[in-house]
Amino acid sequence: MGTLVLLRHGQSAWNAENLFTGWVDVPLTETGEQEARRGGELLREAGLLPDVVHTSLMRRAISTAHLALDACDRHWIPVKRDWRLNERHYGALQGKDKKQTLAEFGEEQFMLWRRSYDTPPPEIEVGSEFDQSGDPRYAGITVPRTECLLDVVTRFLPYWESEVVSDLRAGKVVLLAAHGNSLRALVKHLDGISDADIAGLNIPTGMPLRYDLDDDMRPTVPGGTYLDPQAAADAAAAVASQGR
Amino acid sequence: MGTLVLLRHGQSAWNAENLFTGWVDVPLTETGEQEARRGGELLREAGLLPDVVHTSLMRRAISTAHLALDACDRHWIPVKRDWRLNERHYGALQGKDKKQTLAEFGEEQFMLWRRSYDTPPPEIEVGSEFDQSGDPRYAGITVPRTECLLDVVTRFLPYWESEVVSDLRAGKVVLLAAHGNSLRALVKHLDGISDADIAGLNIPTGMPLRYDLDDDMRPTVPGGTYLDPQAAADAAAAVASQGR
Repeated sequence: MGTLVLLRHGQSAWNAENLFTGWVDVPLTETGEQEARRGGELLREAGLLPDVVHTSLMRRAISTAHLALDACDRHWIPVKRDWRLNERHYGALQGKDKKQTLAEFGEEQFMLWRRSYDTPPPEIEVGSEFDQSGDPRYAGITVPRTECLLDVVTRFLPYWESEVVSDLRAGKVVLLAAHGNSLRALVKHLDGISDADIAGLNIPTGMPLRYDLDDDMRPTVPGGTYLDPQAAADAAAAVASQGR
Repeated sequence: MGTLVLLRHGQSAWNAENLFTGWVDVPLTETGEQEARRGGELLREAGLLPDVVHTSLMRRAISTAHLALDACDRHWIPVKRDWRLNERHYGALQGKDKKQTLAEFGEEQFMLWRRSYDTPPPEIEVGSEFDQSGDPRYAGITVPRTECLLDVVTRFLPYWESEVVSDLRAGKVVLLAAHGNSLRALVKHLDGISDADIAGLNIPTGMPLRYDLDDDMRPTVPGGTYLDPQAAADAAAAVASQGR
């Protein structure tokens, strides 16, 4: 029916510093820019050329889309942006060091905040350094104070149904340039992954993940296909071990 | 009523080499990228923050918009792209050296091709190196084989009326990231410049030009206002002397 390409943004400044980022709008590092261009080259080599791109409102996803599309000569396609593709809001953990948080709160609490489906981190204090309420890009929406993955699924799926599925049903190749947890939310939905099993799923940065979808918007190949499977497996293992 | 910001793309690879570019999709140089970022900083310093951006389908305008908007923290605004904002098609001159063309054809013919309102350059040969027919981004339109400025006015104004004016009437700050001749076409219309006088108007790269428009979409200040007037005047003089 349609072809979906998921692309997690390349390494950001705070990925590199091992800080919880969430809705803080940090830029890509040079490594992240290279990853984005490499992602676009993989698309070009595979002949998998997007007809439309959907991004979050965050610069790491927007820049990744720009660089990847430029690298495969599709910089001119229509662009749609929406906050519902944003990363999970990490609450009071935003700006905190992952290793230090692990040391301070212990393995169990740390993994609960990072990977439990329905336990959000503590809420961020409104008006504190890394709070986004008042940011003009979120005018008209209630900026979350924290989110668990379930919250991301809840806000993302209506956008998926109303905006992305219509592009797919029109037979388009859709690039979705987003974030670790907004993409995990979508993959959970597409592959019907359980609330427990989604904890073990990690999506590497800058690696295009292809899903061909049938008429019911179900993947013809469960789990999709990374364009560079070995690199994706290595990178996913690195994501899983963050904070160690 | 609304506020319009015109931004000609920063220096491109072929600006730097002094070649006629037209619809050939060359990238920005590093200087051009810096100009784009500087344009964005000027917007930020002026507090002139775009709510929506319109670009052509060409990477030098698309990258300029991306870099300028990133620099003023407006990377997340809605994006509209359309071929009608493209540069003037330079016909058989595309890819030719400006200085060499001047030497070969003489001052009068050279200036006629560059600046006359209604005399297009010779047509490009379909299928030749710098022809864009068959480019997937122009599927569904008839790619021009050459254009004079009148042709650009004719194709651009319907887009202006249908897509840009509605954003302005909604009170938005509209960024239009485009090209020397598509912007000259618009400025001719806005300021009511005669077919003869438009020959003398040059728009410098990377310099935001602000127009405040009244209810009839007429400029409240004829000619608009460059955010950095001295730099714009110097740069416009340099454009005028190209090929010398």
